[in-house]
Amino acid sequence: MFLVTPIISIVGKSNVGKTTLLEKLIAELVSSGYRVAAIKHNKHGFDLDRPGKDTWRLARAGASAVAIASAHQLAVMREVEGEPALEELLPLLGDGYDIVLTEGYKNGPAPKVEVFRAGVYDSLLCGDEDCLIAVATDVEVETGAPQFPLDNASALSDFIEEKFLKGPRRERTL
Amino acid sequence: MFLVTPIISIVGKSNVGKTTLLEKLIAELVSSGYRVAAIKHNKHGFDLDRPGKDTWRLARAGASAVAIASAHQLAVMREVEGEPALEELLPLLGDGYDIVLTEGYKNGPAPKVEVFRAGVYDSLLCGDEDCLIAVATDVEVETGAPQFPLDNASALSDFIEEKFLKGPRRERTL
Repeated sequence: MFLVTPIISIVGKSNVGKTTLLEKLIAELVSSGYRVAAIKHNKHGFDLDRPGKDTWRLARAGASAVAIASAHQLAVMREVEGEPALEELLPLLGDGYDIVLTEGYKNGPAPKVEVFRAGVYDSLLCGDEDCLIAVATDVEVETGAPQFPLDNASALSDFIEEKFLKGPRRERTL
Repeated sequence: MFLVTPIISIVGKSNVGKTTLLEKLIAELVSSGYRVAAIKHNKHGFDLDRPGKDTWRLARAGASAVAIASAHQLAVMREVEGEPALEELLPLLGDGYDIVLTEGYKNGPAPKVEVFRAGVYDSLLCGDEDCLIAVATDVEVETGAPQFPLDNASALSDFIEEKFLKGPRRERTL
């Protein structure tokens, strides 16, 4: 049996509110009993670890990859050469998720939800070729995709649940 | 061709100085031109991320796994049920390493270097069955394995380099 885990990418311009929407969607889906994984694309690099922690010390000493594991969690930090594609990141998550939500990866293969705010830019980033399944927006926009109020993640969460998480799809065997 | 990446586990009691030795070994090996990955076992759990960071927000919202990737690095933080074995962590590191050093994993399959300090405990943790290849110690101990001064990581690093990283082993084909 091969369970198909749906992946949905939250896309939109910088500072439009992608992380905030993703945070709310995760909370909604988790409170509905789903197990969620999240992947964030970061254009400018990131600085995750805390100075002084053992993992930080090992990375500072020159390790190209540092992993840490306990009975409850594991973490891996690695140098990479060039942005990893979404497909390369998925295996690192392990399995057992009902859904994977990503922030970014507009050019990736997953269905997209675009976050739009009239004050931030003028027209949608996603065209028909981008597999746009919904828009979370503070104004009405011109698109064939369903639109949801940006300040109400619960309506969008219900839509995602209905479309991707209910019914035979969850137990589809290939 | 199948390159065999050596794995060496640095073991010893809590607070004996494993992280400090590992940090020095990594620095020595990296300065000799080797690409090093490190894995740390943590008995009590860890708190890696920084409050307020986007990854922290997504985990706090309830995501069971959070990954972040840029053009230069990637990181994954995951919940697990029970301590992952060393063999489960290795694939998460990616590849291209000359050596993997671990802190802990005394019961794992890798050759061991035990860190010993007379003030911390009385006799070595590792027996003959543990594949003890060296002891880093502040006193002379009773063992058939070679002993190195705890305060001189360079001698131990040379030993590891000679034994695991030089000669035909590095390009062995299976």
